[in-house]
Amino acid sequence: MERQFDEELKDLKEKLLRMASLAEESIELAIRGLKERDEEVTKKVFDGEDHINLLDVEIDQLCMKLLALKQPMAVDLRFITSSMRISSDLERIGDLSVNIAERTLDLLKLPPLKPLLDIPRLAMLAQKMVKDSLDAFINKNDGLAKEVCERDDEVDDLNDQIFRELLTYMIQDPSSIKRAVDLILVGRHLERIADHATNIGEDVIYYVKGKTIKHHCEKA
Amino acid sequence: MERQFDEELKDLKEKLLRMASLAEESIELAIRGLKERDEEVTKKVFDGEDHINLLDVEIDQLCMKLLALKQPMAVDLRFITSSMRISSDLERIGDLSVNIAERTLDLLKLPPLKPLLDIPRLAMLAQKMVKDSLDAFINKNDGLAKEVCERDDEVDDLNDQIFRELLTYMIQDPSSIKRAVDLILVGRHLERIADHATNIGEDVIYYVKGKTIKHHCEKA
Repeated sequence: MERQFDEELKDLKEKLLRMASLAEESIELAIRGLKERDEEVTKKVFDGEDHINLLDVEIDQLCMKLLALKQPMAVDLRFITSSMRISSDLERIGDLSVNIAERTLDLLKLPPLKPLLDIPRLAMLAQKMVKDSLDAFINKNDGLAKEVCERDDEVDDLNDQIFRELLTYMIQDPSSIKRAVDLILVGRHLERIADHATNIGEDVIYYVKGKTIKHHCEKA
Repeated sequence: MERQFDEELKDLKEKLLRMASLAEESIELAIRGLKERDEEVTKKVFDGEDHINLLDVEIDQLCMKLLALKQPMAVDLRFITSSMRISSDLERIGDLSVNIAERTLDLLKLPPLKPLLDIPRLAMLAQKMVKDSLDAFINKNDGLAKEVCERDDEVDDLNDQIFRELLTYMIQDPSSIKRAVDLILVGRHLERIADHATNIGEDVIYYVKGKTIKHHCEKA
């Protein structure tokens, strides 16, 4: 019984890692599609989302089964409830990558507004936060989780800068408005991906330390 | 023991209802502040968020306690895990109302762009979805929950219409750009509030019927 439980926890961990790597890949594909104006690559984001959603449902079902049949205590209980939350966050990250891909398909109908530098940089920051938050979870590294939470400010600042720059484009040239708004929304989606990575970081701290730091990341 | 468990489930339900009514109020205050250009009302949204966050933490702790000590089965287990999810969704709704309030404070620095009609209508739709999704949860009404999920398309359509109208404002008059972008973001925040109500609807269907319909609302 004990051994079977360990096997199932291992299975849960593997599913989460697979989901996280799909979520990271979805961000990467979405941004590559946008930057290189590649419709083929962009469309791959939609396929990836189906896999992510499927894993979300599988993880949920596995967690409910573990809660119902194994009645886990303490750290195992926290691991399972955290896994359910993390799965939701990864699923939302997949959705946000799809939102970016939708903006890209819109943007491809018009010539490029400007070479994209800051948005791919923002995407890299967000993607790294997702990766590190999951590494922190798997390795019970609450220090790394806290660091992920702190990086959220950097993302917000960079996105504000992108937003302001795009406003100046729109004001100078009304023909740029549609495209600039699309890029502003891409920035927002990336900022929200970073928010979900921050949520995961908070869950990791809860899982490792047994205390809630939601809404108070600085107290971790 | 049994009786104490029932009391705690009742307590959990009351906390969720309180949180939901705060979340609804936060949407209402945010939109009233925006529509009436009232800074006082707008600032109340920030105070409300603290209460919502506090309840989110309390609900989480209560759920974890119930999972650990009572080892609930079947419908009780689904009630508790659904409560945790719903609490997260309500907390995000509170955050989104704060995001709207932030846009309003920005908008109040400039004269009004236009009389607001569609955005308050969008807000009313979203707020009603939040209310109905919680009513569905409390009354185990999966029919109502399904209906909430279906209303999400109406919200998306109205928001698209708002978006397109604001684009025309920007193109006609570059001095409107900053304000139009702020209003586009308000529309996005409301659309996301409706998404969270849809998540709650999906959780209700899972709780009542014991089957996951996440990502497949139409199959409920």
